[in-house]
Formats: sequence, C-alpha cells, structure tokens
Amino acid sequence: MANAIVSQSGGPTGVINASLVGVIEQVVKHPDIDKLYGAVHAVSGIIKEDFVDLTNVSSETLEAVAASPSAALGSSRDKPDTAYCEKILEVFKKRNIEYFFYIGGNDSANTCKIINDMADEVDLDLKAFHIPKTVDNDLRTTDHCPGYGTAAKFVACALMGDDLDNRALPGIKLDIIMGRDAGWLTAATTLGQQRDDDGPHLVYLPERPIKIEDMIAQIKEVHSRLGRCVVAVSEGIRDTDNVVWAKKIKEDAEVDSHGNIQLSGSGALADFLADKVREGTGVARVRADTFGYLQRSFAGLQSETDVDEARRCGRQAVIYSQDNDSGSVAMKRTGQGKNYAVELFLTDLANVAEFTKELSDNFINEAGNGITQAFKDYALPLAGNLPKTDFFSQNPKV
Amino acid sequence: MANAIVSQSGGPTGVINASLVGVIEQVVKHPDIDKLYGAVHAVSGIIKEDFVDLTNVSSETLEAVAASPSAALGSSRDKPDTAYCEKILEVFKKRNIEYFFYIGGNDSANTCKIINDMADEVDLDLKAFHIPKTVDNDLRTTDHCPGYGTAAKFVACALMGDDLDNRALPGIKLDIIMGRDAGWLTAATTLGQQRDDDGPHLVYLPERPIKIEDMIAQIKEVHSRLGRCVVAVSEGIRDTDNVVWAKKIKEDAEVDSHGNIQLSGSGALADFLADKVREGTGVARVRADTFGYLQRSFAGLQSETDVDEARRCGRQAVIYSQDNDSGSVAMKRTGQGKNYAVELFLTDLANVAEFTKELSDNFINEAGNGITQAFKDYALPLAGNLPKTDFFSQNPKV
Repeated sequence: MANAIVSQSGGPTGVINASLVGVIEQVVKHPDIDKLYGAVHAVSGIIKEDFVDLTNVSSETLEAVAASPSAALGSSRDKPDTAYCEKILEVFKKRNIEYFFYIGGNDSANTCKIINDMADEVDLDLKAFHIPKTVDNDLRTTDHCPGYGTAAKFVACALMGDDLDNRALPGIKLDIIMGRDAGWLTAATTLGQQRDDDGPHLVYLPERPIKIEDMIAQIKEVHSRLGRCVVAVSEGIRDTDNVVWAKKIKEDAEVDSHGNIQLSGSGALADFLADKVREGTGVARVRADTFGYLQRSFAGLQSETDVDEARRCGRQAVIYSQDNDSGSVAMKRTGQGKNYAVELFLTDLANVAEFTKELSDNFINEAGNGITQAFKDYALPLAGNLPKTDFFSQNPKV
Repeated sequence: MANAIVSQSGGPTGVINASLVGVIEQVVKHPDIDKLYGAVHAVSGIIKEDFVDLTNVSSETLEAVAASPSAALGSSRDKPDTAYCEKILEVFKKRNIEYFFYIGGNDSANTCKIINDMADEVDLDLKAFHIPKTVDNDLRTTDHCPGYGTAAKFVACALMGDDLDNRALPGIKLDIIMGRDAGWLTAATTLGQQRDDDGPHLVYLPERPIKIEDMIAQIKEVHSRLGRCVVAVSEGIRDTDNVVWAKKIKEDAEVDSHGNIQLSGSGALADFLADKVREGTGVARVRADTFGYLQRSFAGLQSETDVDEARRCGRQAVIYSQDNDSGSVAMKRTGQGKNYAVELFLTDLANVAEFTKELSDNFINEAGNGITQAFKDYALPLAGNLPKTDFFSQNPKV
C-alpha cells in the first residue's frame, strides 16, 4: 500500500473540480492506494507539504464540489525547475507517495512528465498521470478537453444575448474572448446562432493573423449591409507579423513563469480595437467587452456533457494507474451528432506536454474571419443544450 | 374601439420581453382595444411608423420571446423634444391610437408623461402607461424594478465564481459593475456569499464617494489579512468631489441624448483602477474585469421571480388602462423572506419620471465599503435561487 497525491494546476475551469471528484471517488476503490492527499496550490503545496486529507469525503461534499467552478484545491502558475522537482520527489519519498494525479493543461502535462522522468532516473516508484483540463481546448491527442464545453456554453449564451442586445441598440460590438494560442473558445461564440443574420458576424482567431485595416474594412462592410455588426475577437489575435496585438499595444506587458504574456484581466485590447474601429468606420456606437474570468469561473453554469466527461477522466486516471506507469487521459469521439459519445484512452505524457493544438483548418472559413458548420458539428455536443431565443421578426409590419 | 401601441426603451434587460409579452397577452382581453402595434426601436419607430402587428401572436412565440433577453422590438436612446412629441401625436391620431404602453426606465416614464400631457393639451384621447424596467433598480416609488432580479442573479453567480477563482490563484481582483447613479446592482454581487471570507470583500458604490488613496488602503488591509481581495466597484464610482472616475480619466467621454456619460462598453475604468491598485499596494497579481453588457443580456439566465413579475407588470398596465387615464405600474412588497410576495399598484407618471432612487442608507455598512444583511434580505428573493458552491476547506490537513 502507498499513498497518492492529487492536485490542480493552471487556470481554473467550470469542471476541473469534477475531475478532482472523479479521482477521489475512484481512489477508494483502488486496491493499492492507502491515503489520498490533496496538494494545496498545486506543486507549491507539494514542496510546502500543504496537504488536505481527501481519503474520506462525504458524497454530499463531493457533489457540491463537482458542481462548483474554479479549483477547489487551489492552483499555481509555478513552473518547477530541477531543484523544485527534486524537492517534490523528496516529499514523495517522505510521505510514501507512489501515485501522482495532476489535473491541468499542457504545461502541467510537461511538469508531470519531468517529475516522472526524474523519478525513473533515481529509481523511485512513481505512477504519474495527467488529467486534461483547459477552457482553451488546445491540448494535443485528445478530441477535446474537459472545461471547454462549459466555457463554450458560457460564450455561446453570452453572444446570443449580446447579439440580441445589438439588434435592440444597433452599432458595432466587439467581444474579446480567452484563448492565447488557439481560437477554440472564440469559435464557440457562434454556437448559439439560430438565424442567418445572428452574430457574431465576424470571428477573428490567433490562427489567422490579420492587419487591423483589413479587419476594419470587413467590419465596415457588415455594418453597411446589416446596420450593425457583432465581432468575436480572440485575446490572442495577432498582426500579420505574428506579434499579438495585446503585446504591441502594451510593450511592458506582464509575462508569467511559463513565458506567457498576461492577456486576461485587462480591457486594454478591447479599448484599443474599439478606438481603431470607431475611427476607421465612422460609426458612432462602438462598444467592446472583455469577457475575462467570467468565461472560466461562473457559478451555476456547466455543460452536462462536460461535467460528466471531466469526472470520467478523473476516475479513469485512477483506473489506468492500476496497470500503467504513467500517461495522460484522452478522449476519442465514437459517435457524432445525436449519437455523440466518447471513449477514453491513455496516451503518453509526451503527446500532451508542451505544445498546443490549433483550431483545425476545416473549422475556419476561407476568408479567415468566420467559422464553418464542421466546427459547429464538432463543438455543439460539448456545449450541451443551448437556450432558444426569439423576437418578432416574423410578425407582419402594419 | 381604438388601437394600442407598445414599445420598449432604454437599455435592454433579461426580462423586458416578459413585460412585452404580458401586454400582448392581456390586450386581447381588453374590451376596447382593436389592434396592437409594436413600435420598432421605441419612439423612433412611432414617428417612422415602423410597426409590427402584435394583435395575434402564437403562444409558442410568446413563451420564446418571454424567455429571451434584450428588447424584442428594438430600443432607442432618443430623447423626444416638443417637435418630436408632436410628430408622435400626429401618428397616434392617424392610426387611431388611444393606448400607449411604454416599457422603460425613468427617462421613458418622463417621455410617457410629456406625451400624455401634450395629448391632454390638444384634447387627444390618450391613455399612457409606463411599465418599469431597469437592471439599475433605481426607479422611485416601486419596491424594485423588473430586470433587476435577473441582473442581480447574474452578478451574484459571477462573483461566486470569481471569488473561487481568486481563492485558486490569489491576488487582487476588481470587478466593475453597471449602475451609473445607484449601487443596487453592485450591491447584488454579495448575494451569493456563503462563508465569512467569501468575496467581494469590499464594495464601492456611487452613493459613497471615496478618494482612491482610501480605497487602496482598504484593499491593502484586506489583502494583508486574507492573502487575497475581491472588490466590486460600481461604474458610477466617484471621487469625494462627486465627479465620477470614468469621467475624470476620460475627459472627452461620450455623452448620450439624456446627458448621461457612456460608462459601459469600455474597460478604461477597470484598467485605471487596476494600475492604481497595483502601484499602491505593491501586489503583483492585480486583475480587473468589466462585466459590461453580459449583465443585462445573457441568454438562458433569468430569475424566475423577476420574469414572473415583469410579465405581471405588463398585463397589469393593460388592466389599469380600462379604468385609468395614465400612470406607472409599481410593486409593493407584501411578504418577506420565504413568504415573499408583491402587490401591484398604479402610481402617477410624475412619481417615476426623471429622478432616480439611491441605495437606502440601511443597506450600506458604516464604513461605506460594504453591504448589510438588510440589503440581502431585500434582494435575495428577487434574484431567486442561487447555486451553492463548496471546496475542501473543512477537510483536515495532513
């Protein structure tokens, strides 16, 4: 018998706690695991030995936690170096930890891999498993990531409301959506579209660098045609020289330990673009909203599919740890549309670590400013049921 | 028999369509009303004679519209002058309009009153009724306003998620909330609090002007004590000289036809405050989000109480028009807590027009930076059921 550690890393999501609950409820069925430690604030909690006992948790608490957004154990942006990882392994030895379950994105998969490799080198018995999560949906190998469906549902509902708002008080509306390297979440703003002229009418993605002048011309064209224009813009939008606009407009922009520039938690990009668009189109009513942290942590809004899959991924990591040494839990889609279903499988940590996955080419329109039906077919089952909206566009004029 | 006009004015809300549906479904029962015209984009639709026939609408469409955010008929920010109102009365004569139902805020009540007074002067038979709506909850006479409960639910759920996010990745988080003259919606950010240390930890309202240095000192104190701090700030926050900060930081700020400075649709205030707080506290992780239009138009999120009351107000305006000449529909609270209930009554248009209502003194704490239990008792029934959240704070450390 040995002990296990579970922790959560990187940006919170609406269902990362469901994965945690999946681990907790499966560990009690694992024949070789004694105690389950929850590391508080990820790797930093491990080296500080700041652990919560998760061996026995009431099902009432488990259900409440699974329904709550954000990371119940706390998170961290630390990027462990060699000395940091050695410290982690010392704690593992001291606490008789032989199982490590790490819920996070590609950086976390990389940390998991480094720790596992170091354990191998010093012949420490360790089984290290990564459980995917990210609202960005940009992990490789897996069909999609737990956390994405819920964030997709949020931005879809937001754009449905925002598009109706823009019908009521017409003008140009820009919405800045999370996703530094990939446009998956920005693309999801289109999922609630019901009518041909429902916004967003233009979608700008990190995968398609664009000159601001071209963007303004496209917005102006839509506004002339419809009398209004709703635009979804990824926070990772970049100029044709491939430098993100957020960096161009703020040269001293904050950078985290992974070298990522700080994009969320500021309205600077939105305000910059709104000023440019107002100036370039001559339209008086230009508004811009930055969705910020609402997209990843909003209480009471989850995609049922997403929360279910997140929990399954957590459970499956524990099941895999019975017969495998390490890996990342991934999903394969086995049914489409109304028959949507996934199967879980285990993939090497190296297949998920470090690099990210861009939005597929067939999901982006030819003009590079919109989303295809193929994307909607892919993403709608993940967001789950979306509300329907209506107004009196069908009623006769008198 | 005469005809009726209904229209929607000012900023959209999550339930202004429910009030519209209330009018539509009650008009068919009114003995003296023949046709119901929906004026597209409020008063501007009246003078352009841009009308939708709302006399016969299927119950399926009515239910879908009642569940949709934003103003189904379109809205307007026009402030009619005398010539504009004369034009309106001409259209009323031409179209045999004797009933005018206007859903809006205090500016709309004022427009309704001016048109009604002018009709009286020229002996035009007109019954003009105002149906209240505003996410700002700042109309006089009524206990609260349709639209507020739904927006309150949104900001409460947002802050619940945001506070958990801030527990996961601690720092200082500022959230800018709608409400130019009154702090009702900003106060509602506290409604989801379940634990003593749940944020928002500080709440800044237009009713309590404050120097930025004092605000920073208070934030610093909370951050030192809890290791984190979540702050809700009204977009109408002002300095002790009573000038709103949004105006101070942008001297050329946009002003609408009612003389109101444009506050939403820009992240400038949030970014300004975040920079000041970062500088003044020395805390590295300071983030700011501006909730913007999400608060008033988010598909699929309504307070059940709010949508029900909004619909009742619409129906009641039509009922009042049988025996009264004009007025605004208002609500009186007849039951508290679990016995929460309201009765509708008719009040003079003058009692709602022009001026707004501030947050009551007993709803604000003595320090002027927080909300009292009395406010929560007032507002919780309006927001309806809020989700519960949990994490493992109760589990023992090991």
